[in-house]
Amino acid sequence: MTDERPDQSPITSPRSERVRRIAALAGRSARRKQGRFRVEGPQAVRSLLAERPDLTLELYLTERCESDHPELAALAAAARIPLHRVEDPALRAMVREGEGALVTPQGAVAVGRLPQEDARSAVEAIGAQPAEGPLTVVVLHEVRDPGNVGTLIRTADAAGADLVVLTRTSADPYSPKAVRACAGSLFHLPVVTGGDIDQVLAALAHSHVVAAATSGHASLDLFEAELPARIAWLLGNEAHGLDAATLEAAPLAVRIPLAGRAESLNVHTAATVCLFETLRRRGRG
Amino acid sequence: MTDERPDQSPITSPRSERVRRIAALAGRSARRKQGRFRVEGPQAVRSLLAERPDLTLELYLTERCESDHPELAALAAAARIPLHRVEDPALRAMVREGEGALVTPQGAVAVGRLPQEDARSAVEAIGAQPAEGPLTVVVLHEVRDPGNVGTLIRTADAAGADLVVLTRTSADPYSPKAVRACAGSLFHLPVVTGGDIDQVLAALAHSHVVAAATSGHASLDLFEAELPARIAWLLGNEAHGLDAATLEAAPLAVRIPLAGRAESLNVHTAATVCLFETLRRRGRG
Repeated sequence: MTDERPDQSPITSPRSERVRRIAALAGRSARRKQGRFRVEGPQAVRSLLAERPDLTLELYLTERCESDHPELAALAAAARIPLHRVEDPALRAMVREGEGALVTPQGAVAVGRLPQEDARSAVEAIGAQPAEGPLTVVVLHEVRDPGNVGTLIRTADAAGADLVVLTRTSADPYSPKAVRACAGSLFHLPVVTGGDIDQVLAALAHSHVVAAATSGHASLDLFEAELPARIAWLLGNEAHGLDAATLEAAPLAVRIPLAGRAESLNVHTAATVCLFETLRRRGRG
Repeated sequence: MTDERPDQSPITSPRSERVRRIAALAGRSARRKQGRFRVEGPQAVRSLLAERPDLTLELYLTERCESDHPELAALAAAARIPLHRVEDPALRAMVREGEGALVTPQGAVAVGRLPQEDARSAVEAIGAQPAEGPLTVVVLHEVRDPGNVGTLIRTADAAGADLVVLTRTSADPYSPKAVRACAGSLFHLPVVTGGDIDQVLAALAHSHVVAAATSGHASLDLFEAELPARIAWLLGNEAHGLDAATLEAAPLAVRIPLAGRAESLNVHTAATVCLFETLRRRGRG
C-alpha cells in the first residue's frame, strides 16, 4: 500500500507558489490560463476521482481527512493520480480566494483539467449522443449565477438528463461556487460549455432533438402537451428568461400551469417541473 | 387627490430614530419586539398593499418612485395607510442592516404588522381551512435558510397551495431576505409561523388532511402513488431532511424517482416535484 502514501513531505506554507496557483482558480481567467479547475471537500473530490479520473490531475489531503476518508487515497492510487499531504493552513489558503472564501474545504482539494470550452465542442457533444431512442438534453443560455448553474446541473442529473450544454454567456460550471452547488453531478453526466446558441439549436435539429422552451404566453399546457421522446429544454436568464430570438427559434413552447397568484417561476423551479414531467412520461413509455 | 400626498415634509436624516427602528427590522428579535416587519422595493410593496392592506402600517416612497409607480400611493390612500415622502439617503439607511445590506430598495419601503406567531395560531389556521374538498398544505419544519423559506413559499403559491405552515424552528419568512425571495407570494396565501410539529400533525389529522413526507427509502413512487385530495407536504431541513420522529409520524411517505446518479434532491427541488405533481393530478380530477 505504499503507492497510496504521499511521496513528498507535507505542504506547510500557505504562501507557496503551488498554493497560490490553486487559490487563483477561483477566477475564470486563471482557470482558462492554467487550463485547470479545483474541487473542494471529500464528497465532491470523491465524485471527481470516481467518475472522472481522466480529468483529475492532483489530490491534496490533510492527514486527518486521509484517515477519515481512506477511499480518496485508494481512488487516487488506482488512477495513478499524485497525492500530496498538506497541512491545514496551506489547504485553507488554497480555497481562500473568491466565492469559496467562507467555506471550509474539510481537508480535501483536487485539481482537475478544464475541459475544452468552445462552440465546436458543444456541437460535437450533441452529435456524440445516440442517434435514436429517447434523449433529454438541458441547454443553459445566459444563466448568470454560478449557484443556479450548479443546482440546475444537479437537478438535470437527478431527472436523468443525458447531456447539459451551456452557452458561452452562462456562468462557468467549473467555478468553485458552481462545483459546490453541483454536489458531484458535474462529473456524473456530460457537461459542455462555450456553446453558441444558434449552432446548438442547429445541432439539436440535426440530431432530431426537439428544442423546447417554457413561456407564460404559450398556448400548450406542459401537462397536456405531447412531449417528444428526444427533447432539449432551453433554460434562460434568471431575470428576463430566454431572449426573443431563441424563444422564436424553439420548435416547441409550453406553459407551466400556475395555480396561485405567483406571477412566474424562477428558472430552477421551471426546469424542475419540466425535467421531472419528462422523467414521469418516460417511466410510462 | 390631496389625500394621496404625504402630509409631512420629507424624511431626510439617515440617523433619525424612525429610520433606525426600520433598519433594525432586519433582525428577528427587533421584529418581535416591535411587532413589525419591513418590505422593500416597488413589487413587494405593491403586493403587500394590494393583498394585505390590513397588515400594512406605513409606506415610505422617494419622490422618484412615487412618480414611477403612482399605484403605490393610490393603494395606500385607498386603505388609509400613512404615506411618508423620504429622501434617498434616509431610505437606503432603512435597509442597510442585516442580510438586506447589498440590495437597493428602489425607492419603496413599507412596514407591516407582524402576524401572531405561536403554536395555537398554526393549529387555528389549519382548522380555518374548508372542512371538505381538495386541499394542499405545505409544512416547513426546520428549514433554516431564509432564502429557501422564501423560494418555497413562492413555489407553494405557484402550485396552488392553500396554506403554508412553518414550525418554530424554521427561518422567519418575515426576514428581509425571505420576503425578497417570496416575490410577493408571502401576501398571496396564508402563511403561519410558530407551529409545533406534533400539534400541526394532530391538527392536520383532525381536518382529514394526510401528511406526506418524501423519503429515499419509501417503497411508494410519487408518480405511481395515489395522492389524497387533502394532502400536506412535510418539508424538512436542508442538510438532514425530516427528523426520524416526524418521518415516522407521517401517514404517507413517497419516493421521488431519481434517474441519474445524483444522490438526493435539495428541499426546494423535492418540494417543486411533489407540489406540481399534486397540481397536475388535481387538473385531471
